[in-house]
Amino acid sequence: MKIRSLWLGWVGIAVLLCVAGFASLGARRPYDATPQAILGVLEEQQKAWNRGDVAEFMNGYWNSPELTFAGASGITRGWEPVMARYRKNYADPQAMGQLDFSAIEIRVLGKDAALVLGRWHLKRAAGDVGGVFTLVFQRLPEGWKIVHDHTSADAKNQ
Amino acid sequence: MKIRSLWLGWVGIAVLLCVAGFASLGARRPYDATPQAILGVLEEQQKAWNRGDVAEFMNGYWNSPELTFAGASGITRGWEPVMARYRKNYADPQAMGQLDFSAIEIRVLGKDAALVLGRWHLKRAAGDVGGVFTLVFQRLPEGWKIVHDHTSADAKNQ
Repeated sequence: MKIRSLWLGWVGIAVLLCVAGFASLGARRPYDATPQAILGVLEEQQKAWNRGDVAEFMNGYWNSPELTFAGASGITRGWEPVMARYRKNYADPQAMGQLDFSAIEIRVLGKDAALVLGRWHLKRAAGDVGGVFTLVFQRLPEGWKIVHDHTSADAKNQ
Repeated sequence: MKIRSLWLGWVGIAVLLCVAGFASLGARRPYDATPQAILGVLEEQQKAWNRGDVAEFMNGYWNSPELTFAGASGITRGWEPVMARYRKNYADPQAMGQLDFSAIEIRVLGKDAALVLGRWHLKRAAGDVGGVFTLVFQRLPEGWKIVHDHTSADAKNQ
């Protein structure tokens, strides 16, 4: 009976480890927390833009040469070139205007990736502009970051 | 000794099931096959477009009311409306022209999702057009499908 109890104990431990292993694989998927984390990044970007802080706005993007930004001028590649593009196209607070994101939709693509659609609008004395954007976010060691941005201006604004 | 052998057998079975379970979780990640499967979808789309078959071209897209297409005219939602948009904007073979995809980049976002960037070009008697696109693919029960498309025309073509 002692031997049987001993083996029963080992079987119990093996089964518990197995269950715990699978449970931890499930628990590592923080799907529920994803939309909130991403909304936080967009909110920080909007605030940074509206105080004229392009560098802080760029903090929402993956700081990598592999970051991509697509639009009517093709593909801009790399964090520095993307920031340079923003600085060139929006050279002063008047050009930057007041940014408003709206109609945000977050679609989770897995435990470490999400697709975000939305509208952007710049309120400016020189004339408002706006359009739609597609963002791909990835969960990196440094947090959720935009790894790809495709932004269009509405046809009527062009 | 018989009881011990019996329990040893059960421990062996439990451990094997546990190992097999984890192994199958790993094996279900066909990361390597993803780019080839996606290139196949794009190739079929290009062929379908170039024989004027919009319905077959649409086979590359997720057949769902949740499919989204973003661009200078905002967001079009649903498989039927996206097809209607193509049929309206490219009403005949002359308008459709000859489609060529180039500079395709596939970035795997997880076991069931991928980001695809590239350039599109339409060769037409009435004047060529082209630009960049962002596609988000998801691996669905029916295969890899485009669940979101953001397409821009180059500024010089507008």
